[in-house]
Amino acid sequence: MKKLLDDPANAVADSLEGFGLAHADLVEVHTDPFYVTRASGAVQGKVGLVSGGGSGHEPLHAGFVGDGMLDAAVPGAVFTSPTPDQIAPAIQASDGGKGVLAIVKNYTGDVLNFETAVELAEAEGVEVASVLVNDDVAVEDSLYTAGRRGVAGTVAVEKIAGAAAVRGDDLAGVTAIAERVVANVRSMGVALTACTVPHVGKPSFDLGDDEIEIGIGIHGEPGRHRVALSGASDITRSLLEPVADDLGLASGERVLLFVNGMGGTPLSELYVVYGRARRLLEERGVQVSRSLVGNYVTSLEMQGASVTVLRLDDELEALWDAPVRTPALHW
Amino acid sequence: MKKLLDDPANAVADSLEGFGLAHADLVEVHTDPFYVTRASGAVQGKVGLVSGGGSGHEPLHAGFVGDGMLDAAVPGAVFTSPTPDQIAPAIQASDGGKGVLAIVKNYTGDVLNFETAVELAEAEGVEVASVLVNDDVAVEDSLYTAGRRGVAGTVAVEKIAGAAAVRGDDLAGVTAIAERVVANVRSMGVALTACTVPHVGKPSFDLGDDEIEIGIGIHGEPGRHRVALSGASDITRSLLEPVADDLGLASGERVLLFVNGMGGTPLSELYVVYGRARRLLEERGVQVSRSLVGNYVTSLEMQGASVTVLRLDDELEALWDAPVRTPALHW
Repeated sequence: MKKLLDDPANAVADSLEGFGLAHADLVEVHTDPFYVTRASGAVQGKVGLVSGGGSGHEPLHAGFVGDGMLDAAVPGAVFTSPTPDQIAPAIQASDGGKGVLAIVKNYTGDVLNFETAVELAEAEGVEVASVLVNDDVAVEDSLYTAGRRGVAGTVAVEKIAGAAAVRGDDLAGVTAIAERVVANVRSMGVALTACTVPHVGKPSFDLGDDEIEIGIGIHGEPGRHRVALSGASDITRSLLEPVADDLGLASGERVLLFVNGMGGTPLSELYVVYGRARRLLEERGVQVSRSLVGNYVTSLEMQGASVTVLRLDDELEALWDAPVRTPALHW
Repeated sequence: MKKLLDDPANAVADSLEGFGLAHADLVEVHTDPFYVTRASGAVQGKVGLVSGGGSGHEPLHAGFVGDGMLDAAVPGAVFTSPTPDQIAPAIQASDGGKGVLAIVKNYTGDVLNFETAVELAEAEGVEVASVLVNDDVAVEDSLYTAGRRGVAGTVAVEKIAGAAAVRGDDLAGVTAIAERVVANVRSMGVALTACTVPHVGKPSFDLGDDEIEIGIGIHGEPGRHRVALSGASDITRSLLEPVADDLGLASGERVLLFVNGMGGTPLSELYVVYGRARRLLEERGVQVSRSLVGNYVTSLEMQGASVTVLRLDDELEALWDAPVRTPALHW
């Protein structure tokens, strides 16, 4: 295992320490228990947004804490759900008097621990709503999930719901917007290589030198099938078509196209996939009106990528465009 | 070789096609010959800024074309200098009547080809100045270089000179600011793994399973020494100390600390290195007043990182803070 770490058991804590120092203008890292909030605390009169999940997917979620997106993020151990005693104080710290929306990726551990945390926060008088992100079309039910997994589409949920909160929507309104994003976003990914969890020290799964896994999960959970390595056009088609079909995209619609890197793939290759995916959408008569390309929901150093498509309307597009100022998204 | 590409011989062209489509609001990709300009063309009355070099270091340089940074970027083949007939039209397209500054990383091929291109552009009536970036303290002279190599410090030169041009400085003024950055910026990098040039198909060099190369170049050129893999604290010290010593940093000074990923290293590990480097600077009494952490000057999918330190003063800090709107840097 080759990693820039000291004690692998402290990987998350050491990384969060650096993260907090590098972005002290935007975030504050709390250490007992671990959670991350906006440096300036909850915004009075604004619905708070909290997300979280296992570490190893950076910049998700802590990289999206700031103006116009999350108020708090709760990092678990690598690929391990955060605990209720981490999540509950993050929810409380995000309440500006209008309640808090918890954005939860659909993994059984995350769902259960957020449920418990929401009960704890409600017992302290915070009004809390939850939305479940399950955008991965690859498989129904998986290693850690009942139903579909939540993957890169989470970025769109957090960005757009964050903008709705800044706009002044109440808790029901922000929740409805988040649910509209969930209903209109789909993703699918591919792994070229496995990743290695620091405290485990060996790759999470084996892939042959000439083999890739189509439909991989962001923890290396099995996908749809293993196939021989082929070209970017073939691979992109095998990701984009299930996504577009599941969305039921029709000619004349417009979308956000988001090509996400898994951590170990060069940006140059992500742009190749983006170009191929865009061409396939255009062949369907679908207009790509917004784009995002980069490493946003990663699996440590895994080589691979995912393709996410979000069906847009005027309101979702305007909320996507609204200003955002976080460590990882900024416009 | 596992890459998300179609024909490896078209890797750069295919990537640029996707890049241009994804960022059509900011950039225009010209294909015969290949160069990238601002979508809106040269800014009249502003000094133009052009940079370029071999591909494989994305987002450098094309990712920094836009408002407040470069007016044009010229990508060569992977790890290969762009040709004068690519560079010259990029210089001409960037001239808004106040002349153009060419920012050149110190590699022999880049230096020669930019020199020829500058002569061609001058023959067309464009006033051109050049600045050479040579921030890598690892070695004097190298595989492709006489003198020190230009590496991640290039981002600081392009950002700060870009802000000076927006401020309205004339060509001599922008050049002087760029030279002040070069005089005050130093870098050093480490490789944990080698990278593979697409059209070559096998790793550029061999590193043992428990071996790292300290002082690596961004094309995998040899560094200072190979050592056994150690912890992030040890590795960071071996990068930061030569950088700080070479700069002659004294207690009470303030700096930009930039931890750059080589492409295949997770963001979480870069933050660990950042935290360690910051502690070492603080032990010297040096204040880190600005920070940048991420993959900005990469070596394809190489795992590794570099540490860059720029000595700041009020003016350089204000120019660093000035608004920037490019595909890869945005604030």
